[in-house]
Amino acid sequence: MKVDAARLHARLAELATIGDTGDGGVCRLALTDEDKAGRDLVVTWMRDLGLRVEIDEIGNITGTWPPESTEPPVMVGSHIDTVRTGGRFDGNLGVLAGLECIETLITAGVELAHPVAVTAFTDEEGSRFPPDMLGSLVFVGGMGIEDAVALTDRDGITVGDELERIGYAGPTPCPRLPPVAYVELHIEQGPVLEAEGITIGAVTGVQGISWQEVTLTGQSNHAGTTPMHLRHDAGLVAAEIAVAMRELAVAPDGPSVATVGRLDLHPDLVNVVPGRAVLTLDIRDTDDAVLTAAENRIADRCAELAEAEGVTLSTRSLARFEPVAFDPRMIDLVEAVAKAHGHTVKRLPSGAGHDAQMLARVCPTGMIFVPSIDGISHNPAERTAPDDLEAGANVLLAIVLELATNSTQRRVESVASSGEGGAS
Amino acid sequence: MKVDAARLHARLAELATIGDTGDGGVCRLALTDEDKAGRDLVVTWMRDLGLRVEIDEIGNITGTWPPESTEPPVMVGSHIDTVRTGGRFDGNLGVLAGLECIETLITAGVELAHPVAVTAFTDEEGSRFPPDMLGSLVFVGGMGIEDAVALTDRDGITVGDELERIGYAGPTPCPRLPPVAYVELHIEQGPVLEAEGITIGAVTGVQGISWQEVTLTGQSNHAGTTPMHLRHDAGLVAAEIAVAMRELAVAPDGPSVATVGRLDLHPDLVNVVPGRAVLTLDIRDTDDAVLTAAENRIADRCAELAEAEGVTLSTRSLARFEPVAFDPRMIDLVEAVAKAHGHTVKRLPSGAGHDAQMLARVCPTGMIFVPSIDGISHNPAERTAPDDLEAGANVLLAIVLELATNSTQRRVESVASSGEGGAS
Repeated sequence: MKVDAARLHARLAELATIGDTGDGGVCRLALTDEDKAGRDLVVTWMRDLGLRVEIDEIGNITGTWPPESTEPPVMVGSHIDTVRTGGRFDGNLGVLAGLECIETLITAGVELAHPVAVTAFTDEEGSRFPPDMLGSLVFVGGMGIEDAVALTDRDGITVGDELERIGYAGPTPCPRLPPVAYVELHIEQGPVLEAEGITIGAVTGVQGISWQEVTLTGQSNHAGTTPMHLRHDAGLVAAEIAVAMRELAVAPDGPSVATVGRLDLHPDLVNVVPGRAVLTLDIRDTDDAVLTAAENRIADRCAELAEAEGVTLSTRSLARFEPVAFDPRMIDLVEAVAKAHGHTVKRLPSGAGHDAQMLARVCPTGMIFVPSIDGISHNPAERTAPDDLEAGANVLLAIVLELATNSTQRRVESVASSGEGGAS
Repeated sequence: MKVDAARLHARLAELATIGDTGDGGVCRLALTDEDKAGRDLVVTWMRDLGLRVEIDEIGNITGTWPPESTEPPVMVGSHIDTVRTGGRFDGNLGVLAGLECIETLITAGVELAHPVAVTAFTDEEGSRFPPDMLGSLVFVGGMGIEDAVALTDRDGITVGDELERIGYAGPTPCPRLPPVAYVELHIEQGPVLEAEGITIGAVTGVQGISWQEVTLTGQSNHAGTTPMHLRHDAGLVAAEIAVAMRELAVAPDGPSVATVGRLDLHPDLVNVVPGRAVLTLDIRDTDDAVLTAAENRIADRCAELAEAEGVTLSTRSLARFEPVAFDPRMIDLVEAVAKAHGHTVKRLPSGAGHDAQMLARVCPTGMIFVPSIDGISHNPAERTAPDDLEAGANVLLAIVLELATNSTQRRVESVASSGEGGAS
């Protein structure tokens, strides 16, 4: 049994016409008119297939087959909102490949042990309404609906008002009943699979994130008249910290990634020793102990470097999310199915956040990655090869089939009995 | 013979009332109404003393004693224009201490072998009309008067029009006849003398300056999804270069100072690997061979670091000035006089540019530094202890006496016969 790749490509292309930015990209910020038009199209496709369409209080759209079933489903999905300079595949692939899988199962007349459902979650990107992954967070009860609808964009417009305005303030209460299992197909948004020539990623979890802002205060001085030994150069310490961050990440026991993305000097003039520097530390790892150790190690190093230069240091946390580990049996299943399909497969963590990390709190959850060309995402140039899209959709189909049919009832119950799958 | 310190302090204070910024500072940008008012006051003081006052084509003001003499003088001086956030002593000290020395000589009835003159040079700061040291540059013939008067400020107003407007487009042609010798008293504008508890600096010359801008182009990527070994992090290379600049400067054979004052990342976001970085390299030394070696060494290191990260590099020169070495006999003279006055004295180069470096092209030239409290200059908080101001003025007086009187005729001729004193 295979998906209809041409139909999947056609739906991806049609959805991409809504909010088309003219440069290959898409802009459908959450709860805008473009988001509404995209939602309407997805709902139309669900209804045309005969699915039961439910809209919940936070605007998540779920299509279920068979329509009359009220049992917990095997759920697939993702999101259709985009960042301002978004691509065609981020999120959309998970929703439309899920729809394609259900259409394939219906067409084949497969007898299901559990209903199957596809969900498009609200505001995964968080670009308009932070935090990101809002719809899935509310779905699992991580945020109350009262708090969620009160969130505002930069113009002060609330989530609740926008849901009402676009007609997606639905009746189904949140938190929702947990699915039997949740599987999400997504583009990698990074370069690992392409670089290693791998078709399928079996996602092991989502990295924990630590974001800190470090402010260094030294002494602004004349670059010509101030001898080196009398300097308190905040810019030098910032640079030393940036170098230490790279050393931290490449150490054998270091975190998976560490980045200084922002570094601002004051007064930022060629002939003035910088008196102040502000830089950010982004550290990620799948193991919270490793992440915490890395935070401690870089904090010690920052203090040492600042002291050596006679510069004062202050640090504030911008964000801290614990890692999420997906259910080992779901990871095994993705890997086994990908191999059975003759694909190369690699276990890897997700560097970015996804709705799956929220679902992992309430049910066995897995993710399938397909390669991103040049690792590019959140960009009009975001692409995945058509063959890889098809490969990912067929792996998703096989997994849904495995989880939702009688033939694998024992495996499903084994997976489903694990309770919480996430560490968050 | 000693200067009248109270009179010197009173003149410094009175001149500081013109362009007073209310926070202890002074703003008399070149050729503004405030500069005119300051010039008028200095000219009044010169005329009250009976000096012959000459204004040249670029607006330099020279007061000469005895007024009837047309022989080359022993010249002292500096400038009275300031930066926008200037202090009370930068430049003004050299002019008003020079005036004080001449008044002291006149009062004492000293018999002179050479006339003595004090000059206030136009636009030393270059804050309004780059380049800096414009008046002394034109004085020595380093720039033609036609080019100089055509220079414009950011509003397109020319030096020539402003000189006419404020009444300081004088008749004396430039280049001017070289003085017998030139001596400038100036605040250090750096922390060295204060840090070492030294009263008098015997300035050995002015450092050569190399300013370069380095642009690094890597690849902007997601900080969560891009593994360390696949990064082309322009920000990291910029940081490594900043660290290498410090290593360069503290190496035994390194330049006296090396500074990364400007460092800008793009896109400068916490969760994006920087795709582009621009930084500046300010390297200075009194020895052009050392400066050139340092430029070469850092260029090699930049290329290595960029290549290791897979980042491309381009460099452009923003400025390059050769070092100026003052006449060794003038340095000896400053040192000897300071010691004879019982002061601690240290030979040191000037990190900043001064009118003296232009005069060094045409006559034996020396400079005397007095300490800057906390090394602060170009700042309303710029200060020098009253005792140090007085000490510097008395050293200047003794040097002028040595150079301009019959008692030291042989030494003067020895100094004066050296011809060009500068390396520039």
